[in-house]
Amino acid sequence: MIYLDNAATTKPFKAAVDRAYEFINEKYYNPSAMYKEGFALQSELKKARSALLLPIADQNAFELVFTSCGTESDNQAIFSFARRGNIITTEGEHSAVLAPFAELKTRGTAQVRYAPLEKDGRVNVEKLLESVDEKTCFVSVMHVNNEMGAINDVNDIAKRVKQKNPRVIFHSDGVQAYGKILFKLGKEVDLYSISAHKIGGLKGVGALIKRKTLTLPPYIYGGGQETGKRSGTENTFGIMQFAYAAEEKFSRLAEKNEQIKGYREKLWQALNKTVYTRLSDVAGSPYILTISAVGLRGAILQQMANDQGLLVGTGSACSSNSKRRFSAVVLACGYDEKTADGMLRVSFSDDTTEEEIDRAASILNAIGEDLKRRMK
Amino acid sequence: MIYLDNAATTKPFKAAVDRAYEFINEKYYNPSAMYKEGFALQSELKKARSALLLPIADQNAFELVFTSCGTESDNQAIFSFARRGNIITTEGEHSAVLAPFAELKTRGTAQVRYAPLEKDGRVNVEKLLESVDEKTCFVSVMHVNNEMGAINDVNDIAKRVKQKNPRVIFHSDGVQAYGKILFKLGKEVDLYSISAHKIGGLKGVGALIKRKTLTLPPYIYGGGQETGKRSGTENTFGIMQFAYAAEEKFSRLAEKNEQIKGYREKLWQALNKTVYTRLSDVAGSPYILTISAVGLRGAILQQMANDQGLLVGTGSACSSNSKRRFSAVVLACGYDEKTADGMLRVSFSDDTTEEEIDRAASILNAIGEDLKRRMK
Repeated sequence: MIYLDNAATTKPFKAAVDRAYEFINEKYYNPSAMYKEGFALQSELKKARSALLLPIADQNAFELVFTSCGTESDNQAIFSFARRGNIITTEGEHSAVLAPFAELKTRGTAQVRYAPLEKDGRVNVEKLLESVDEKTCFVSVMHVNNEMGAINDVNDIAKRVKQKNPRVIFHSDGVQAYGKILFKLGKEVDLYSISAHKIGGLKGVGALIKRKTLTLPPYIYGGGQETGKRSGTENTFGIMQFAYAAEEKFSRLAEKNEQIKGYREKLWQALNKTVYTRLSDVAGSPYILTISAVGLRGAILQQMANDQGLLVGTGSACSSNSKRRFSAVVLACGYDEKTADGMLRVSFSDDTTEEEIDRAASILNAIGEDLKRRMK
Repeated sequence: MIYLDNAATTKPFKAAVDRAYEFINEKYYNPSAMYKEGFALQSELKKARSALLLPIADQNAFELVFTSCGTESDNQAIFSFARRGNIITTEGEHSAVLAPFAELKTRGTAQVRYAPLEKDGRVNVEKLLESVDEKTCFVSVMHVNNEMGAINDVNDIAKRVKQKNPRVIFHSDGVQAYGKILFKLGKEVDLYSISAHKIGGLKGVGALIKRKTLTLPPYIYGGGQETGKRSGTENTFGIMQFAYAAEEKFSRLAEKNEQIKGYREKLWQALNKTVYTRLSDVAGSPYILTISAVGLRGAILQQMANDQGLLVGTGSACSSNSKRRFSAVVLACGYDEKTADGMLRVSFSDDTTEEEIDRAASILNAIGEDLKRRMK
C-alpha cells in the first residue's frame, strides 16, 4: 500500500507516540489537580508549548493555546474577532474558515468578502488589498493551500493589510504549512492555526498561536484551562505527542524539503503528459503535487488507484462531506470544470520513499491511460 | 501510590488502549477520505456510537455527536439553545455549565436563574420548578454532582419541567454519571453530555447525546464531520478507545456499583469521626465520598496526603484554575465556610482495592489528627 494522501492526515510518528505513551499509562493525572503529580503535568505542557512555538515564532511575542483541532482554532479566531463591519478571506480557504465566514454572513454579523486566487492557488494580493477598507475588522489568509500547495506570503500580506488598516486582526490557517515549510511568524500576524495530525501527530489536537498582546476570548468556557482561553481537561497524551512529533519534523525540515521536492518533481516527470496536466506550481509546498486528468473524473481515478493499493486525494478530505462534485479551489484558480473534475492531489510525507514515487507514477499512468481508452 | 481522585480523571483502561492502538499505527487514515480505508473508519465510528449509546439510550430516539470533551459538549448544548427569555441551571453545576451561563448573562442573551441545592447536593426540585415559566427556554441540571456525588433524577426533573413548559430544551451534564451509575435516558431529556476520561477513556474525547428529533446547530463549523454537527477531523483513536472503555465499564457496572459502595462505606467507617464529617449521602454515586475536616484546611490535608502517597481532591480539579478558596458547591448545600474549607473529595475507580481503602483511611486519620493537633 502506498499512502500519498498525507495532506488529509499523516501516520502518527511512532517514536513520538512511544515517547508520549507515559501520559496514558503513568502520568494520567488531571493537569489541574492540586498535588505534585498535577503540577508536574503543567510543567510538561509548558515544555510542549515551547517546543511547538520555538521553531516558528519569537516566544516573547507569541504564545500558544491548545485546542482540539485546526478547525476549532480557526473557529475560535474567526468568531472571536470577525464581529463587525466587513471581514475578508480568500476563495482558496479550507472549509474550517469558509464555513464560519458563511455562518457570520447568515447571522448578518459582518459583510463577507472573498479575494480571488491566482492560477497557482495563491491569493491575488492586490485584489485582497483593494477590498480592505476602514470598516474591515478581520482578514484570514491561509498559509499553504491544502488543495494546490500554493504558499501565500502571509507575513507580507499581513503587513500590507495593516498598512491600509492597522486595526485589522490578521489570521492565517497554517495547518498545511506548520512543520512542512521553513518560515518565521512575522509580527503583523495576530493569530495562526496549526494541527497535529498533518505532521505525524494525532487527530484531536491543534493549537491557536496568538500575538501575546492580543486578548483572546474563550470559545469554550468552563474550568479555565489554558489560562481561561480554552476550557476542558487538557489532552495531555495528544499534546505531548504533538510536541514530540514537531521536534522530529522540524529537526530535519530543510533537508526533507529538498528531498520531498525532488520526489515531487520526479513523480511529475514520470507522469504521462497526454493524460495529466500539472496544476500546482514548483514554488508551492514540496509536500503537494496537484494534477488533473482533464476530461476524466478524478473520483474514478481515485477508486482505480485505491484498487491498485495507491491512496491519493481529490482535494480536501473534509470537502467529501459536502455533495460538491468539483474542487471549488481549482475552479477559483481559473480552471474549467473539466480540469476541476479530473483533479487529483498527491501528497507526501517524510516517510515517502523513492520506490513509492516510481510505483505511484506507473499506477497513475496505467489507470489514467486505461480510463482514457475506455472513455473514447 | 494510592490514586483516589478518579472524579478528576481516571487512568485509561489498558485493554481499551491496546485494542484501539491500531487506529494510531495502522488505520490512521482520514475518516472523510473517499477510498475504502476511509469508508472503513466511518463504519468503525458508527460502531463506537452504538457501543456508547446502547447502554443508556434507545437508539431510535437518541443519537450521539462526538466532541473533544465534556466541556465542549456542555458549551454546544448551552450556546445552541439558551438563546432568549430565561435560562435555568443549578448552584451545583460544574464550571463547564456555570461559565457559559455567566457568559450568556454578560452578553445579555437571557436572564439567568440558579436553583438552590439540598443539603446532600441534589437540586431542590420544587424551587427549580418554581423558577420555570413561559419564558424559560433552557434548563440544565447535572446528573451526578462532581463534588458531592449526589444523584439528580434528571428523567423525572425533565418531565416535570416540561409539564410546566413543554417548549423548554432540557440538558443534563452526565459526565460523572455515565458508566458509573445504572440508568436509562428518559425521553424528556433533550441533550446529555458525556466524557471519556472519567471512565477509563482518554482526555480529549467527549460526546453530546441528543434527541434525534432535535435539530442541533454546529458549534464548530467546517468540513461537515458528524453530519455537520461538529466539524474537525475525527479523533479516531480517542473515540474508539472511549467505546472500548465504555464496553468494559458497563459490562460490570451493577457488580462494581455494589463493590465500590462497600469500599466507600468501609472507608467512611474507618475514618476518625472527631476529625471528619461526612458531606456526601449514602444514596449518592458509589464512586464519590465527600468529607470535611471542619476547622482544618482541606488544601493542606491534600498536600499532606500527597506527601504520604495518597492522591485525593478538594472539589473539582477544574476549579483549581480559579482563585476560589471554598467549594461553592459545599456552601450551596448550606454548609458554613469552615466546612467548605475542610472539604476533601475521595473518588474511586473500578481498580480501587480494599487494601488501598484501608491504607487511605489510616493516612487520612493520621494527617487529620496531626493537623488538628498542630492547629491547637
